[in-house]
Amino acid sequence: VRGPRTGREAKVLTHLVLESSSKPPLSESAFEIVERKGIGHPDSICDAVMDEAARAIARAHVEAFGQPKHFNLDKGLLAAGRSEPRFGGGSVLEPMKLIFGDRAIAEVEGVAIPVRDILVEASRRWFRRSLRFVDPDRHVVFQNEVRAGSAQLTGLFATRSPPANDTSAAFAFAPWTTTERIALESERFLNDASLKGRHPEVGEDVKVMAIRREKALSLTVAIAFVDRFVDSDTSYLERKERIRALLRDHISERLGEIDSLSVAINTLDAAGGGADSLYLTVTGTSAEGGDSGQVGRGNRLCGIFPGRRPSSAEATAGKNPHSHVGKIYNYLAQRIADRIATLEPVREVGVHLVSQIGKPLTEAELVAIELVLAPKALVSDVRSEAESIVDAVLREAPRFADWWVSLEGPV
Amino acid sequence: VRGPRTGREAKVLTHLVLESSSKPPLSESAFEIVERKGIGHPDSICDAVMDEAARAIARAHVEAFGQPKHFNLDKGLLAAGRSEPRFGGGSVLEPMKLIFGDRAIAEVEGVAIPVRDILVEASRRWFRRSLRFVDPDRHVVFQNEVRAGSAQLTGLFATRSPPANDTSAAFAFAPWTTTERIALESERFLNDASLKGRHPEVGEDVKVMAIRREKALSLTVAIAFVDRFVDSDTSYLERKERIRALLRDHISERLGEIDSLSVAINTLDAAGGGADSLYLTVTGTSAEGGDSGQVGRGNRLCGIFPGRRPSSAEATAGKNPHSHVGKIYNYLAQRIADRIATLEPVREVGVHLVSQIGKPLTEAELVAIELVLAPKALVSDVRSEAESIVDAVLREAPRFADWWVSLEGPV
Amino acid sequence: VRGPRTGREAKVLTHLVLESSSKPPLSESAFEIVERKGIGHPDSICDAVMDEAARAIARAHVEAFGQPKHFNLDKGLLAAGRSEPRFGGGSVLEPMKLIFGDRAIAEVEGVAIPVRDILVEASRRWFRRSLRFVDPDRHVVFQNEVRAGSAQLTGLFATRSPPANDTSAAFAFAPWTTTERIALESERFLNDASLKGRHPEVGEDVKVMAIRREKALSLTVAIAFVDRFVDSDTSYLERKERIRALLRDHISERLGEIDSLSVAINTLDAAGGGADSLYLTVTGTSAEGGDSGQVGRGNRLCGIFPGRRPSSAEATAGKNPHSHVGKIYNYLAQRIADRIATLEPVREVGVHLVSQIGKPLTEAELVAIELVLAPKALVSDVRSEAESIVDAVLREAPRFADWWVSLEGPV
Amino acid sequence: VRGPRTGREAKVLTHLVLESSSKPPLSESAFEIVERKGIGHPDSICDAVMDEAARAIARAHVEAFGQPKHFNLDKGLLAAGRSEPRFGGGSVLEPMKLIFGDRAIAEVEGVAIPVRDILVEASRRWFRRSLRFVDPDRHVVFQNEVRAGSAQLTGLFATRSPPANDTSAAFAFAPWTTTERIALESERFLNDASLKGRHPEVGEDVKVMAIRREKALSLTVAIAFVDRFVDSDTSYLERKERIRALLRDHISERLGEIDSLSVAINTLDAAGGGADSLYLTVTGTSAEGGDSGQVGRGNRLCGIFPGRRPSSAEATAGKNPHSHVGKIYNYLAQRIADRIATLEPVREVGVHLVSQIGKPLTEAELVAIELVLAPKALVSDVRSEAESIVDAVLREAPRFADWWVSLEGPV
Repeated sequence: VRGPRTGREAKVLTHLVLESSSKPPLSESAFEIVERKGIGHPDSICDAVMDEAARAIARAHVEAFGQPKHFNLDKGLLAAGRSEPRFGGGSVLEPMKLIFGDRAIAEVEGVAIPVRDILVEASRRWFRRSLRFVDPDRHVVFQNEVRAGSAQLTGLFATRSPPANDTSAAFAFAPWTTTERIALESERFLNDASLKGRHPEVGEDVKVMAIRREKALSLTVAIAFVDRFVDSDTSYLERKERIRALLRDHISERLGEIDSLSVAINTLDAAGGGADSLYLTVTGTSAEGGDSGQVGRGNRLCGIFPGRRPSSAEATAGKNPHSHVGKIYNYLAQRIADRIATLEPVREVGVHLVSQIGKPLTEAELVAIELVLAPKALVSDVRSEAESIVDAVLREAPRFADWWVSLEGPV
Repeated sequence: VRGPRTGREAKVLTHLVLESSSKPPLSESAFEIVERKGIGHPDSICDAVMDEAARAIARAHVEAFGQPKHFNLDKGLLAAGRSEPRFGGGSVLEPMKLIFGDRAIAEVEGVAIPVRDILVEASRRWFRRSLRFVDPDRHVVFQNEVRAGSAQLTGLFATRSPPANDTSAAFAFAPWTTTERIALESERFLNDASLKGRHPEVGEDVKVMAIRREKALSLTVAIAFVDRFVDSDTSYLERKERIRALLRDHISERLGEIDSLSVAINTLDAAGGGADSLYLTVTGTSAEGGDSGQVGRGNRLCGIFPGRRPSSAEATAGKNPHSHVGKIYNYLAQRIADRIATLEPVREVGVHLVSQIGKPLTEAELVAIELVLAPKALVSDVRSEAESIVDAVLREAPRFADWWVSLEGPV
Repeated sequence: VRGPRTGREAKVLTHLVLESSSKPPLSESAFEIVERKGIGHPDSICDAVMDEAARAIARAHVEAFGQPKHFNLDKGLLAAGRSEPRFGGGSVLEPMKLIFGDRAIAEVEGVAIPVRDILVEASRRWFRRSLRFVDPDRHVVFQNEVRAGSAQLTGLFATRSPPANDTSAAFAFAPWTTTERIALESERFLNDASLKGRHPEVGEDVKVMAIRREKALSLTVAIAFVDRFVDSDTSYLERKERIRALLRDHISERLGEIDSLSVAINTLDAAGGGADSLYLTVTGTSAEGGDSGQVGRGNRLCGIFPGRRPSSAEATAGKNPHSHVGKIYNYLAQRIADRIATLEPVREVGVHLVSQIGKPLTEAELVAIELVLAPKALVSDVRSEAESIVDAVLREAPRFADWWVSLEGPV
Repeated sequence: VRGPRTGREAKVLTHLVLESSSKPPLSESAFEIVERKGIGHPDSICDAVMDEAARAIARAHVEAFGQPKHFNLDKGLLAAGRSEPRFGGGSVLEPMKLIFGDRAIAEVEGVAIPVRDILVEASRRWFRRSLRFVDPDRHVVFQNEVRAGSAQLTGLFATRSPPANDTSAAFAFAPWTTTERIALESERFLNDASLKGRHPEVGEDVKVMAIRREKALSLTVAIAFVDRFVDSDTSYLERKERIRALLRDHISERLGEIDSLSVAINTLDAAGGGADSLYLTVTGTSAEGGDSGQVGRGNRLCGIFPGRRPSSAEATAGKNPHSHVGKIYNYLAQRIADRIATLEPVREVGVHLVSQIGKPLTEAELVAIELVLAPKALVSDVRSEAESIVDAVLREAPRFADWWVSLEGPV
């Protein structure tokens, strides 16, 4: 039992709600629907680029102004280009256009940072590192719609607990089901360097839809093939079948309680119709020719979109790590969920965090936890430990930004 | 009992999964988190405008080409403008920029439609009808990034069942909880013509966060006040308090099982700091000066964002009603949920619909239904009726587009 | 003889150069080449719109800041749209894009003006007033690339003689030759309201090239016909011939010393090839579908482009009337030329004015005058009067801006 | 005397007009006004880049389609960026924006070329080669407003004499006066590699205004200094004075009949006011921070703007070399002028060429030549040789494009 508390510390617990559900964990349910968009999917590109850009702006603020300032980059559009894929290698006729949105402090007391330059350079670094066949100098045009503002220096660092900038609700869960793990693993396998070495024709734009009905799992996969490595219909179909077999074998070793697996790739392909009737691209992403993307429309922060679970209304990508609760609380909720899931009687946990606008991050409006417990276990068995975990994680909030900004590359 | 089936008809039921949960309905849970973004919120503007634009393009296709053609407008960005709110009325210094994304067929066998013109005119109509103080000719700039394509005439109408264009998962639920109804009703009250008559200072950009803990409900409301009707700090605070009282009274009559209500408006306001420290706008939407919006980031199709429920990964706004399952299935899931909720033992229902890419809309990959039933009721009590409902609704799919296109104004 | 001068006044004359040429006036030369672009020509549109916009910004500065501030709008691009002209009336598929360039002070000590709004509204007014069939809300997109700056209030008005902002050379001549007058008159006739009443099919985009060889004049005229008034090849050709006859008759009465006149219209037309092989437009300007325009590429300030005369390197349209010598000196040079041309022995005069950067407008770096005098007349016969004229006109420089800004509509 | 001619050949001479002027050559006049904009001036950048882009498109057409196709790139805008020059090196806060205008065939019978890519790559090559401190990847944003069209293959090459696309007037003169040569040479000296080696602080944006009054020449020079090489007011002023002395010495050796020379650099500089009151830039061009540029607003084709001479209304930069007479005829007029200037009695020559729309380039509407002859020489002395020259040069017209396209880099 924890000792008496006073003042601010007590607040966290005031708003902690624990609820135990009598339903079984999701992994034992009758069905699951899980989606994973790969790194080259237009929505994933937007998320990753804007988060990389946010990190660059956060660093630039500290370097130029000596302290973090306000910004928010969670709005962005990747408008599709126009391309002409051909067997043996086609061409990009018009580039994609990446439009950066929302706002950033660009000037503090006479010192200015080149916002557009920072955004564009961060994006180009990301493209070069992440997509083998997209040349950001030729295939991407950048448009800056970030509204630049100016600010004064503040005594912000006097407090280690900056205030929440919004009323915002976050959610995270733990642990993952087998279906969820397979959705993620399927995409990772297809985008792994070792597969790319043998099968460079597998583009980075991969999308996996995993549907489980009782113990039967079906994976429907879309892969943007890279045209320069494919010289005919026949070659395409042979490669697709080889990749399908490799993926099926890879996943077969990770099935756990699943007892039946089916895998389908690019089911819309129409053999015999030439390059136009297959899923062929010049650069490995559909953004080159018709599919646009947006921030916050791809995977949830955890890396997948689990169709039967709650999810946060917030996009985390691009948000400021210092005070934007829409970002911070999603990360913190995940930490809380991960730790609570390790408690003995907990079989599944969902964590909702709601911020109080204007209040320190450590003072949540609501911390609400859904639990699936082992048979006969009671909420009272875990309450004290859960309280400690919540308390400890919320106390970390002020250090979140430093950690996040120091990350190398996208999370 | 339904008679024997053959061929395509039977398929629907092949994939129907019914699951009964032992947990109580959401309304009886320990907490709820529900958000509603009003019509003038930047994300809501994007959704409404793009849906209006989609309707206009769909009509133009039929008028010019004699048949519907491919398009998709579910990507769009409203980049914020720059404004200078002042007591008594400030000014918009730079307009918002509405960027239309994705793609549309613009030409069929030599006949062309003016895509940009259609998009812009539809948007302007929406602005004029929906936001009292936004003049689309002066306050909004339009940028068209829709990739225009050309197509041939097809025998599309030969079949009443066009194929699904994607593997896509939809979700809907019924009935609403009291908290959900109040979140919606709060915004409607604030944006209702009769309140605007008495309180024109209430801007259309309203956001409601409703948090229920057991039987206590707290509403945190953000309202963009219109500066021309407010001449001082004092005036602002008086009006805010009057509106708070009106809203509290209005909601108090609708509390159902809730027994405690708190209402807070614009909690970040700092009295005495002048116009800059209050939530004051020139046009009644924060998009005029700093807050950008995107398609698919606002309310779910049902009109709210219910934080504890599953939600679809798909944005419905802007999508083509003829073949885009990301739109159609969300509407159909809602119809199925609404009808199943009327069945006697059903206390709560959630409906997941997953499409099969390339298959007719009537042939879903998965129809999975979560049920909360009355004590002692069994899934088998409702299976047959549920099957009939699902079957009937899916058969309506081919007529969905005609219905949707014929709607007047935003749904 | 003028009395003794001191100080600043003397400076003007220090730099006056008078030169008499022994060649005959241009009207007696062996040939002339004169061009006139009509009000609907893409280059003319740019000039007129940017000058209208400059006037609006100049007024806004005085209204908002109490004094004129720096701006320069002499850079702009009208990017062509896309249209589909048809007999009986076609459509504009994509709008033109008018891009505003260069810079303007937008804020002075906390007071800001909405630059884009002012530019766009001024442009729209111009379009509505000037081009019957261009609807600026539907056929024109506006892009603001004006770099906005801020400034302090200054004691600018303490002096009535603001300094020159550049080293800039202006030129003007007088009087006009018959060929020059006919080039202008031809376009005015075609764009006059009374002709439009009878022949609404004559678009505003008219271009006249007048070539004189000795006493023979040929007019080559391009007219953008408006498609809604033309229902066939035959109708087009009949109308063209009727207009040609009307123009020939009109000009025949104004020939002066010319004794032979030929008139040709739209010589590239190919009868029998349908709408595409004629010069047909939807709106009466070629900017709707392929021809772009720029500021400073149309007529010289005098209203024509006289191919054998010198011309200023400066575009006057869009420039600031308060301190931009590239504008002011061209107007002043014209006034000087007009007045000197009235002196008895002067048959033709050309006036060059060069500014001194950083010096008051009244203190030119060089005033150089080319004279064609009557036989036996000497430069010394007109020197004194010329000096008085130059002196008087340069003294008007500080009042130029007030006069120019007060003009209604384009000059 | 030349023998009898028939058919097309005769046409050229039909329209040849020769006129002898009794005035002295310009070099003996009382004054001259000559301007030269250096390679880094915003207008010069536009001209050079668009011509480089035109060359790239011309090559791409032949490579992709097997024949030249229509395009015109003589409209373009370089919108200024925003920069913060500082002693020791400042930064570019927002890039310049280069907007490409007008139109190009992008597709012929199913084969397409990536127009934007070609334009951008050509521009980047130009920037890298021409401006030491402008990094096109970071300091320039490209916007493509070129209207792309499609076309059919034609038997164009059947004829060696494509038709003129417009009624267009060109002008050229020879020889240059001393003042004209000095204006050009001053800029070349300042932008020469050997000076840059010793004085890297001399930016490429140089503008020279040369004013001659009788035998006195004054050069007013504007130089954008590069801030990284200048660490204080004092350093700036010392360097400026050293460069002034070097330029004066260099030009002093080339004065010819001039007997007095004055040189002034950056006369607006205000010592003691810090970086803001000097002409300091980060990249050596004023386009980085306030000064926009346009195609066709810089030097005439000959490389200078000679204020007392006629000039063509046409911009040559960016135009199609195959059929755009606005480009071709200006080059041909220059060749004619250069050759006629070599004839014994010719002291000065001006050549006007006017095209006939729809007629072969070899068939000019008008070839009109102004001559200043040696005392007692008559037009009849040179008529026959002039005719031969004109005839020979016009016959070269069909080969002009091949020559021009084969040029390396800007002319």
